[in-house]
Amino acid sequence: MAIVSIIYFSGTGHNHLMAEAVASGAKQVAGAEVNLLRITGDQIKDGRWSNDDYAEKLAKSDAIIFGAPTYMGGAASQFKAFADWTGGVWFKQGWKDKIAGGFSHSGTPSGDKVVTLQYMFALSCQHGMIWVSNGEFPSMYLGKTDGVNRLGGFSGAMGAGGAAQGQPAAIDSGDKLTAELYGKRISEFAAKVTK
Amino acid sequence: MAIVSIIYFSGTGHNHLMAEAVASGAKQVAGAEVNLLRITGDQIKDGRWSNDDYAEKLAKSDAIIFGAPTYMGGAASQFKAFADWTGGVWFKQGWKDKIAGGFSHSGTPSGDKVVTLQYMFALSCQHGMIWVSNGEFPSMYLGKTDGVNRLGGFSGAMGAGGAAQGQPAAIDSGDKLTAELYGKRISEFAAKVTK
Amino acid sequence: MAIVSIIYFSGTGHNHLMAEAVASGAKQVAGAEVNLLRITGDQIKDGRWSNDDYAEKLAKSDAIIFGAPTYMGGAASQFKAFADWTGGVWFKQGWKDKIAGGFSHSGTPSGDKVVTLQYMFALSCQHGMIWVSNGEFPSMYLGKTDGVNRLGGFSGAMGAGGAAQGQPAAIDSGDKLTAELYGKRISEFAAKVTK
Amino acid sequence: MAIVSIIYFSGTGHNHLMAEAVASGAKQVAGAEVNLLRITGDQIKDGRWSNDDYAEKLAKSDAIIFGAPTYMGGAASQFKAFADWTGGVWFKQGWKDKIAGGFSHSGTPSGDKVVTLQYMFALSCQHGMIWVSNGEFPSMYLGKTDGVNRLGGFSGAMGAGGAAQGQPAAIDSGDKLTAELYGKRISEFAAKVTK
Repeated sequence: MAIVSIIYFSGTGHNHLMAEAVASGAKQVAGAEVNLLRITGDQIKDGRWSNDDYAEKLAKSDAIIFGAPTYMGGAASQFKAFADWTGGVWFKQGWKDKIAGGFSHSGTPSGDKVVTLQYMFALSCQHGMIWVSNGEFPSMYLGKTDGVNRLGGFSGAMGAGGAAQGQPAAIDSGDKLTAELYGKRISEFAAKVTK
Repeated sequence: MAIVSIIYFSGTGHNHLMAEAVASGAKQVAGAEVNLLRITGDQIKDGRWSNDDYAEKLAKSDAIIFGAPTYMGGAASQFKAFADWTGGVWFKQGWKDKIAGGFSHSGTPSGDKVVTLQYMFALSCQHGMIWVSNGEFPSMYLGKTDGVNRLGGFSGAMGAGGAAQGQPAAIDSGDKLTAELYGKRISEFAAKVTK
Repeated sequence: MAIVSIIYFSGTGHNHLMAEAVASGAKQVAGAEVNLLRITGDQIKDGRWSNDDYAEKLAKSDAIIFGAPTYMGGAASQFKAFADWTGGVWFKQGWKDKIAGGFSHSGTPSGDKVVTLQYMFALSCQHGMIWVSNGEFPSMYLGKTDGVNRLGGFSGAMGAGGAAQGQPAAIDSGDKLTAELYGKRISEFAAKVTK
Repeated sequence: MAIVSIIYFSGTGHNHLMAEAVASGAKQVAGAEVNLLRITGDQIKDGRWSNDDYAEKLAKSDAIIFGAPTYMGGAASQFKAFADWTGGVWFKQGWKDKIAGGFSHSGTPSGDKVVTLQYMFALSCQHGMIWVSNGEFPSMYLGKTDGVNRLGGFSGAMGAGGAAQGQPAAIDSGDKLTAELYGKRISEFAAKVTK
């Protein structure tokens, strides 16, 4: 029985949909408790983030999954403000050995999503965490059309595309499935490690 | 005659000293106009950065040098808030072909300063800029004791170390010299390209 | 008048087509002399690469463009064997201030091509070179259908896709155009800097 | 009871000493079976690596730890030749869910060791592996002088320094201890996950 928290920022709503898909997958594991924690601009004062409720939930988590859009070549600054807040946790190595993972959705198929995921990996390593890779082979190489890992994201879950002008945010069905499978994978691994 | 701007965040003052050293080197080039632009927390509202004066100076610059401490494995969030603000410039490719460079000072000799510099590089590439590497061979391999590039930072200028408890921030003399030489190198290259 | 060399490895032929496109763009600049230097397995003995003819051409080049497929998350080992050979050049900083760039073609849209380009950037910085970014805004955001920078590769030129079983290698027309424009951009910049 | 394999290349002998330290730590865990697998140039023909004995041992391993010097900004090409050989394993996802880690020793304190470790991480993610971070807080911040994680390497184990002219390779005592602790950490985690 594991506690899995997804802490993420979403600007236009795409990463929120990715987060919901990751959460949906994580919940498929029996006994999993899943927290969906959205970072918002009003949680940031003078460039510094804080949120006591989130802090408590993260401290109790077995796995923490990071999510953010890739803005200007890296994780959105709102996410980075959260990351910098973890400096206090870091000094006590309070998240040591927790399970980690990450996802990013942005406009273009590649873009710099790898840079964002590399950063989330670096953050997890600062904390002494254990990183779970995506684990899904691009299904097109297996002759499937479900779009699983269609972008070739190996370190975490990737999504790409934009909303049509004036339409609500939507994500690709393959990216959604990729995110669900990734949430399930991390939840299963957390359950295995913490049992 | 080139305009060189250094835009940076500094928390404890070390990166401010690095920025001053870079500026000092940049000014050694005849005709160089150097702007030292410090990002501060009060320039950030609800997680978003803006500063009209800096925006104007950066628009007129031939070279822009990025600077930030490495916090929790990457560039400080205050710097990232500035970087995300450049999205408007990006959409018009307003900084295309400008010269770029970067520096980072943090506590440990390696740390994740490379991650910070990789991010600054990614940011510069989003803008279609031209990145100038450090260019100084670690001088210890040449039998010198001036400490130039003692850390082995090749993409930009690195500094490492911490202040003694209760003492003002100070930087290593080798790191200072490395930063000065890097500022001079970028200023010279900017002058060559823009003449 | 600049000398531009493209040094690359290609396994299945896709990166060879990318290299030819880059060369074609580079040649569009008046007076440019372009060398297309293909790394092959037989140039590698006991894991070490060498080729005197290539070495001489690279030494005389104003710009060097690196190219390699992304294999197992990074630049193909044949390319890395070449890169390690440059250690002798490095010690004398023989390529200092030369212009650099890079490209990578692989199967999936994202994959780890960013890791490959980050590596090529790191290599160029070891040598004290100047890196030229892609510089093309993804044209789809401008309402165009020519496929220029369709993948969102900002540090260098990216290509993606696979050959149909039993068919010769072919590259996407947008990726080809992206590579041509990148070759031209570097050639123009090299001409400007070296004049 | 876990099988831990360390597969590494060493040129001057420093990474061999790092590998031995990692192995020594891994063996401290009851029941651990540790394989020390050294990549050598003669295992590479026409740029391609292969070794049936190593292949079999790696297939049976619960954890695989990668090691290589950082040459010209990235993992030594001999290591990359090995990594590219794993493409066959990758296609069948034969190493999925195995535990992974990495180390690198090079001359300067920072250098591009982070680039090497990022690459090893990318390789592990291509394989769907689980990456174990260093997990040791830089002990100097705790007032200790044992040199544990003195360089600030968070993703894996780092070592730095060079041999005195004409002397055999030696590694720093802090780096050695860091490598031992890292080997033990991975071995313990592998035992926990595979029990």
